[in-house]
Order: sequence, then structure tokens, then C-alpha cells
Amino acid sequence: MHRYRSHSCGALRPTDAGNNARLSGWCNRIRDHGGVLFVDLRDHYGLTQCVVDPDSPAFREAELLRSETVVRMDGQVRLRPAGTENAEMPTGLIELYVTDIEVLGPASELPMPVATDQEYPEETRLKYRFLDLRRERLHKNIMLRGQVIDSLRARMKAQGFFEFQTPILTASSPEGARDYIVPSRIHPGKFYALPQAPQQFKQLIMTAGFDRYFQIAPCFRDEDARADRSPGEFYQLDIEMSFVTQEDVFEAVEPVLRGVFEEFGGGKPVTQKFPMIPYRESMLKYGVDKPDLRNPIVIVDVTQEFELPDVSFKAFKNVIASGGVVRAIPAPGAGAQPRSFFDKLNDWARGEGAAGLGYIIFDEVDGTLTGRGPIAKFIPADIQAMIAQKAGIKAGDALFFACDQEGKAAKLAGAARIKLGHELKLIDPNVFAFCWVVDFPMYEFNEDDKKIDFSHNPFSMPQGGLEALRTKDPLDILAYQYDIVCNGIELSSGAIRNHRPDIMREAFAIAGYGEEVLEERFGGLYRAFRYGAPPHGGIAPGVDRIVMLLAGEENLREVVLFPMNQRAEDLLMGAPSIVSAKQLRETHIRLNLPEKK
Amino acid sequence: MHRYRSHSCGALRPTDAGNNARLSGWCNRIRDHGGVLFVDLRDHYGLTQCVVDPDSPAFREAELLRSETVVRMDGQVRLRPAGTENAEMPTGLIELYVTDIEVLGPASELPMPVATDQEYPEETRLKYRFLDLRRERLHKNIMLRGQVIDSLRARMKAQGFFEFQTPILTASSPEGARDYIVPSRIHPGKFYALPQAPQQFKQLIMTAGFDRYFQIAPCFRDEDARADRSPGEFYQLDIEMSFVTQEDVFEAVEPVLRGVFEEFGGGKPVTQKFPMIPYRESMLKYGVDKPDLRNPIVIVDVTQEFELPDVSFKAFKNVIASGGVVRAIPAPGAGAQPRSFFDKLNDWARGEGAAGLGYIIFDEVDGTLTGRGPIAKFIPADIQAMIAQKAGIKAGDALFFACDQEGKAAKLAGAARIKLGHELKLIDPNVFAFCWVVDFPMYEFNEDDKKIDFSHNPFSMPQGGLEALRTKDPLDILAYQYDIVCNGIELSSGAIRNHRPDIMREAFAIAGYGEEVLEERFGGLYRAFRYGAPPHGGIAPGVDRIVMLLAGEENLREVVLFPMNQRAEDLLMGAPSIVSAKQLRETHIRLNLPEKK
Repeated sequence: MHRYRSHSCGALRPTDAGNNARLSGWCNRIRDHGGVLFVDLRDHYGLTQCVVDPDSPAFREAELLRSETVVRMDGQVRLRPAGTENAEMPTGLIELYVTDIEVLGPASELPMPVATDQEYPEETRLKYRFLDLRRERLHKNIMLRGQVIDSLRARMKAQGFFEFQTPILTASSPEGARDYIVPSRIHPGKFYALPQAPQQFKQLIMTAGFDRYFQIAPCFRDEDARADRSPGEFYQLDIEMSFVTQEDVFEAVEPVLRGVFEEFGGGKPVTQKFPMIPYRESMLKYGVDKPDLRNPIVIVDVTQEFELPDVSFKAFKNVIASGGVVRAIPAPGAGAQPRSFFDKLNDWARGEGAAGLGYIIFDEVDGTLTGRGPIAKFIPADIQAMIAQKAGIKAGDALFFACDQEGKAAKLAGAARIKLGHELKLIDPNVFAFCWVVDFPMYEFNEDDKKIDFSHNPFSMPQGGLEALRTKDPLDILAYQYDIVCNGIELSSGAIRNHRPDIMREAFAIAGYGEEVLEERFGGLYRAFRYGAPPHGGIAPGVDRIVMLLAGEENLREVVLFPMNQRAEDLLMGAPSIVSAKQLRETHIRLNLPEKK
Repeated sequence: MHRYRSHSCGALRPTDAGNNARLSGWCNRIRDHGGVLFVDLRDHYGLTQCVVDPDSPAFREAELLRSETVVRMDGQVRLRPAGTENAEMPTGLIELYVTDIEVLGPASELPMPVATDQEYPEETRLKYRFLDLRRERLHKNIMLRGQVIDSLRARMKAQGFFEFQTPILTASSPEGARDYIVPSRIHPGKFYALPQAPQQFKQLIMTAGFDRYFQIAPCFRDEDARADRSPGEFYQLDIEMSFVTQEDVFEAVEPVLRGVFEEFGGGKPVTQKFPMIPYRESMLKYGVDKPDLRNPIVIVDVTQEFELPDVSFKAFKNVIASGGVVRAIPAPGAGAQPRSFFDKLNDWARGEGAAGLGYIIFDEVDGTLTGRGPIAKFIPADIQAMIAQKAGIKAGDALFFACDQEGKAAKLAGAARIKLGHELKLIDPNVFAFCWVVDFPMYEFNEDDKKIDFSHNPFSMPQGGLEALRTKDPLDILAYQYDIVCNGIELSSGAIRNHRPDIMREAFAIAGYGEEVLEERFGGLYRAFRYGAPPHGGIAPGVDRIVMLLAGEENLREVVLFPMNQRAEDLLMGAPSIVSAKQLRETHIRLNLPEKK
């Protein structure tokens, strides 16, 4: 018989009854039922009930066992006595009658118990992560993560992609976040940077002719932590393809994401063909560039209706006169809500920095949709009807209004749409609603510097190429840049890249940057593109966020094996920590500590 | 038709003749044959011969093409004229008669041509890696690397292993090499370290109950470069298993390595059942702990024969008297070599710091094996016969002798064995010969400090456990520690780990270390093991070395996508580089540069 086990703790079945078996695992729960000890022995594969009665030669050893001790148990497999079976456990019809116990790994008193669902403070959980990870939910999440990654890989390969490893010790990349830097021992005063993303490398791989790249790529950003972003490091499904248009990227990526969400989404429906929503349409209809399409509310612009001479609502009219807009946010069924519902929303809007949220409640009066509420009286019935029709309102619905300069109005309307969606329970939690947001503007007017600047990624290909750059108003130029969004969460940005040095120079010139900026921020690629670069594009969906969505978790801590805490500390291994004077000397640095207060 | 291609450059066949096709790729070679231009268009998938004659509307465009320009070409597929087919190319029976050309990515004059096998200096190759990677051999090696990793993954999963990602920003690990350190922005004066290996994490994963771990793991060591070790980062197939003995590890790993070498080894035979060679036997028979079993030479100890009173060779007798040994290295067929062969070997041995290499050449004289050569006369015929028999010598063979203190004699004999194997062409280059080296000693006598110290990994389980530590001479205690070797190259060390805090304390005490050293060097794990740790063990074969062996390459540069040079510089991206004063300030360090000379 094997030194440690003949079976895993999830393997024994009634057909094994009568046989001897050897199990090894952790003592999950130990119960004493009238002098007979029941030990649920746990390993990665399952739980088996082990019984030690006072007649067993192992009884004395069993009496000394503590929770989480690792033991080997030998014994005979028996059917559980009638009435004590547990049909919900795969091993619930049998038990092991134990005759020999060997302690393989003793356990001291635990700082946090394993066999409960009780919540523990983050600090305890991270410091004793090896205990936390033994708990069912976290153990399952981590295994799910692995399965999701395996599936992403398999699906990428099925689409003809190849996996590559790009360097981790490299130069700073122009992703805009803070780099982690690593002092060089051999080159005094110089530093490596950990990649914020393998962006330049994947484009070099295309330039080297490899055609279809992917990588489950570790990325590093020295930014403050958020619930949905690990401090320090995170993983993305990094993708790049040559000789493609934007549609080719979508066609390659959609089946991968749809497939993974169908495989691991617990049967929740997944969007079959991801809709493509132009950025401007998204900002109008959803007030954000990452719309949650589970929310049925669609915002409409009613500026021209409020401009009509018969409307006498001065507050809005004044804003419109100074270039503002009015956005209407339908609230289906909100007519049935008490007055306090509307007051609370108004308070919320003020908290968001708005003047308030006007609203009209629509009822059917004598077969006609008729508005009521604080601002209804300023709007004649026929214009109310026009507005109601535009917003798709029916009796019993309310309509909220956000009026401000366009950017602010859109933002407030978008936030109100999300809030109403939640408050009115309009958001179906049991679907995965995907979309592409496309046609991002290439440039925007930077109010701080009073100049034209890139709005997102300066390295995207402008739609229309050199021609568009030379002839169009920069603020009208769109980029081949896109986001993939699921349930209102941005999984990734992507783009068809600008692979032409001549178009790059022109694009940078419009934003007021000379070739030296291009060289400085993008030198490796800019030089490489002079020697024959293919058209290419890609995307990089966040693996951690995908797993969070699939696991239904709202904190990355629940889907990452050994996360750092919010202060970027590894409490288990004690990182970061002080280093020796020798290490500082060898890397040619010394400390420059803040003054003690 | 697609914007860029209807087919890849490797796809067209005679059945496509008569159809229109659109290809995109790089101009690999451009030839002018009597006014007709032939362009070999290349992409990741292959080469297609494209023909542009003066009648084609694309002729003027074609005349301007330079090598490595990226173009789209439209045209009609034609069978090549009889006699011009190339049966060795998959597309060699057809050509594209081009009617339209679009330059997608222009190419300037190249710093190194792509379509040749010519060698270029490393600096040029690394600086223009994107060109180097377009070359057939390197492109193929990188694709092989990806396939090998895919296969390793699939095989590990087939063995029931799960893949996990361990942190890259972490604390220093006790692997003994120099860490890369990363200053913390949030914690002034503290540093992360990049993992030299995920050793502690994989053991924590076992302690967390995950049972079978693997990872294609990036590892970081700030050590000077060697041909077979990248400066900076490298990858290992990191493996760990719970509830296992050493044999279980071997049984899990053997099929993975054997399978990969059979799959990608070009049909070369691979050892079916890897032999297990105890360390001491390996040092005796092969003079090294990583024997190349393709070499048939087996060293034997002939100390006792040289000790016999009838032997009058004083030089050896004196060494033996002072505790030395004599090792005999058979040289099959070397009797036919000229005197200069033996002289050169003697010179070589002196270069290695030895007094020389004595030898005897054996011939058959009157049906008896008879020795000749400088030291034969000091050894009576009957003792010569004993020695010859022990060493498996036949007529026409020679036998070399290394005489010194045991360690030095073994080392010289081992080096001579390798040298003779090469010089006599005894090493079959067309096999992969694997073995396990097992039973490494737990402790050794450290001559510098005049004390007992760990010989290899202090965290391996001593054979015999606590009992052995308490009762045996430390120098006799063996560890459950093993190496996997292929063709004389160590692919990895591994061990059954010491998972018991009590045995750890005892093992460290023998080497003179208190619990505080254990805490300091191994704190995370030492603390974790108090809460129920399973017996576990693992190994971590080097991915880069596996790919080198399979690709038949002798430098890592040939199997890594973007390697650094020997001075740990990324010449393409310009790493390491200077950072801004702001970056230094934010990470609480300043430079401490060496004095200018």
C-alpha cells in the first residue's frame, strides 16, 4: 500500500465497502458522539467521514487530534448505518472505520478556524493565507481561476494564436501609470522597470512576423489599490494580431470571452453577438463609456424640447442658453414610488455636485399620458407628450432630467441611470451582457493646458489615416480604438495600432509633440517600424476581473492566491522588508527617508 | 475580399490555380530575371513566389520594393511553368501573378539582412531583435519553445496537476543567489524582491491543501550571465506534490519529460525508465553528480590494486599513503592513437591542476592482455590483469589513472571521462540519456569554517527523519534530495521537503544554526508548518535548458524571445536606463555611484 494514501478523501464509494483503505488529509471537524469520535478528513479532492470507536487500537491517538492536524488513517470502508447517510456528499454513503492513525503534520491552536464560513479580518486572512485558502469558498475560487485560465488558453489556441513570454525586467513603457523600478547592479545609476503591460513587446512580436500572439501576462503598476485592482501585479490575457481590421479582432476575441463565460458562468445567458456601440452614442444613451446593458434604461436628449418657446422652465432654459443640454432618464414603474424616493434621488444628485434632478411622473388621465411633479407645470401637455414619446415612457413611469454642460449632464444622467436601475431592481443579475464600445475620439481639448491632446492611446491608428489627420478637424477624428465591456465593467481597451512612422509623426504633431517625444516615449517601436511593420491590433482583457465576474466576487482578494493588502504588503512573507547595507551598496543606491515627524 | 489577405503565404496550392488571391507579407527576396520581378513573399506561415512582369499594372510599384517591405499583393494563382517548380516548398508548385501592390509598411535600409544564414554580432542581433526573429532558424526555435511549453502544460495536467500563479513582487527567498530588489513607494526604506524561484509559495500552496501544483514560473537571479543561464530572468517548470515519496515525484515527472523529448526530439531515442544513481556512485563511476550517460566510459577505483606490495609505482603509493585514491578511466580503442594523443591528454590534465594522467595501453600478446606505456613497468602482469578486468578493458583499449585525494581524483577522472568521450567520439549525439541522481548527503564538512554544514538544500527531509538526525554521524545522513540529468546537463534539483518544524530545528542545530536562523531565512514557511503541513516534495526543471537541448542550441539567446546581453542589457528597449529624480524621490532612494576613475 502507498506510504500515504490508497485513495483521496473524495474517492470512496459504497462499492469500496469491506475493503481496507488508507487516507491522508486534514482533520476538518472532530466530533464526539457518545464516546465515538467522528473525524471529517479533508484533502483537495473531498471529505471522508472517519469513525474511531473506543474498541479501535487508534482511539487513544484519535482523542489527541486537533483540528487541521494532518494525519494518515488506515481502516475499513463501511456503509454508513441507515439514516446517517449524507446524499449531498460524494462520499456520504460510506465511512472509514479507523484502526491506525499517524500524525504527519501536527497543528497548533489556529489563529482562524478553517471549517466555518465565519468572516475574518483581512489582516488575519492574509497573514494566515495558507489557512484561509483551505476554506471551501476561496479554495474553489482559486481552482476556478486556474480553470478559466486553462480555458482562455485553449480557446486562444483554437483561434490560431501562439503563446510567448515577454521580458519582466525591461524598460519603462508608456502606459501612463507609475513604474516599479529595479536598480541595476552592473550599470550603476540605471534601473530596469517592470512592465505595466507587454505593449511594446507584443507589437515587436508582430513586427518580427509572428502573426498571432497571446500571453497570460503579469503586469505591474505602482498605483494605489482598489477593490477591483490588485496593488502591484495583475494578469491580463494579452492579445495581438497582424494583418487585421478592428472587426477581425472582435471576431477572434468574442468567441473566447463568450465561450469562457458560457463555460464557467453557471448557466447564465451570455450575449451571443456583442453589439458595437460608438463612443458618442454610449455617452448619450448610457452616460458612460462602459454601459451596463443589463440595465434597460436608455437616456435621451431633450434639449430641443426644453428650448421650445412654450416651455417656461427657466432653470433649464438658462443652462441651454449657455451651451448646456438636457438629458432625460426614464424610470420605468417609478410612478408607484413614494415621494421620499424622488426626494432621496434629488439629494443624491446634489451629493454628486448637480443642482438637482428634475422629474415628471406620467399617469394616464382620460386615455392621455399626463405629467405631474415639480416641473410638469412648466411644460405644456403637447410637449410633455413629445418628451414622453421620445423617452419611451408609459403610464406609471417617471422621467428624470439632468441639465448641465454636455459632459457633466451625460455623467449625471449615467450615474442616475445606474442608480435607478439598482433602486428599481431593473438589473438582471443572472446574465452576462457584453458590448464593444468603438470609435473613440483620437483627440480632445485639454481644458487645463488649453490645447488639443490625445484622448486615450496616442498609438492607435486614426480612422482615415494620414488623409484624415491632414484634412479633418482634430476633434472630429476617430481612432480605431475600442473597449470590451461586460455588465458595466471595462474588461479591456484595445486598438488597431498606428504602425506607420509617417502617420505617427503627423498624429503627434497635431497634439503638439515633436519627433523627440515619440523617440523618448516609444523609441523601441518607432525605430522598429522603419524596417517593415505589418498592420496590427489587439486587446488585453483583465484575467482577474474576468474571474471576479465569474466567481461573483467583488474583491480581487477572493480570486488571487497570495494578494497583497491595500497597503501593498505581503503579510505572509513579510514584503516589502528592509534589505542589507550590502544589497544597497551592490545596487548603487542609498535610502532617502522622509523626515520623522 | 479581406482587407489584407485571402490566404496566408503558406496556403496556396495547385488546386487554387486560376483563382484570384490576396496575400500580405514581407518581401523576403526580390530577384530580377530578365526584366521579370520575382518576389518571395513571406509571413509566419510560409513563402509564396510572386511574379510581376512588365505587363502588370503593378510593375512600377514592384520596381520600387525593398527587402522586408510589408506589402499586400493581389493577383491570380498560376501553376509554375514546367521545370521551375520547387518540390521542397509547400507552395512550390504555384506562383502569384501580381496585378496590384499596396505598400503597408515601408522598410529602410536594413542593419542586418533577414533572408540569409550569415552570422551577425550579438549586439546587432539583440538591438534589431525584431529582424533577427524574422530569420528562419530563430523564428522556428521560438515557435518550438511555445510548443514545448504547451506540451509540458498538457502533460502536467494529464498527471493531475493544477497551474497556479505565485507573486512576483515578494520577499527575498533563501535560494542563495543575489535578489533583484524593488524599492517600495508606500513603505519608505523597504524593498520587494523578485523571486529567485517560487519555492516558499509552492510549499505554502501544499500547506493550503492544493495537492498538486505546477507553474511555468518566471524566476529572477541577479547573477552574472552564462551561455546556459540568462542574465536576469529564466523560466522553470515548477512542480510540487503532497502526500508523496520520492518515487511518486519520479513517476509523475518522468512521463512528462520523456514525453516532451519524444515529441520534440526529432525521433532521437529517449531513456524509457530513468535510472536512479546514488550520488556517491555517480561521483565514483562518472566523477560528477550530473553524468552524461551517452558516454559509455565507467570509472573504477583501483586504489587497493595500487596498494599491493608488488606494485612499485611510488608516485601513486605516496598519495595513497596520505589518504588518496586511484581512479581508472577506460579509453576504449585508444590503443590505436598516436603518442601525441597521450601527451596532449597529459598536458590537459596538468592544465586542470593535476600532476598528470598516468596510463597503460593494453595489447594482446600471445593471447594475454599485456600493458605498455610509461607506468606499466611498475605493475606486475598479474596485477595489470586484475586492473584490466576490473575496468572492463580489452585489447586495443587504454586505461588512464587519476591519483589524488578523493574529491580531486574523482573530479579529474570525471573531466578525463568527458574529454575521452569526445576525443574518441564515444558520445552518441542522437540520444537523450536521462537519469536521476539520488541520495545526496545532507551535510558536508565545510573546510573553510571547519564545521559541519548543509551540503545542498537545508530544507530537504533527511532520510530516517528525526531518528537519523539524533543517532547517525551527520556526514552519513542522506537527504531525500535528487537531481534530474539529461546528457550531462542538470535540468533541476528537487527534494522531498522537511515539513516538520521539530525536524527542521534539529537539522539546523546540527549545522550550528539556532531557531532564529530558521525564522529569518524561512520564516513564512516555518510558521505555516505549525498549522498542519502535509508531507510534500517537488522539482523544477529549467524550461530554457529543455528547449536548448531539443533545439540543439548551445546558447540561451537562441531560444529566448527577447534576451538580455551578457551585461544584462536589453539593447532593443534600452534597459536598464536612468530614471527621473521624481521616481527616485517617490521610492525614497538616491543614487550612490562609484567614484569616477
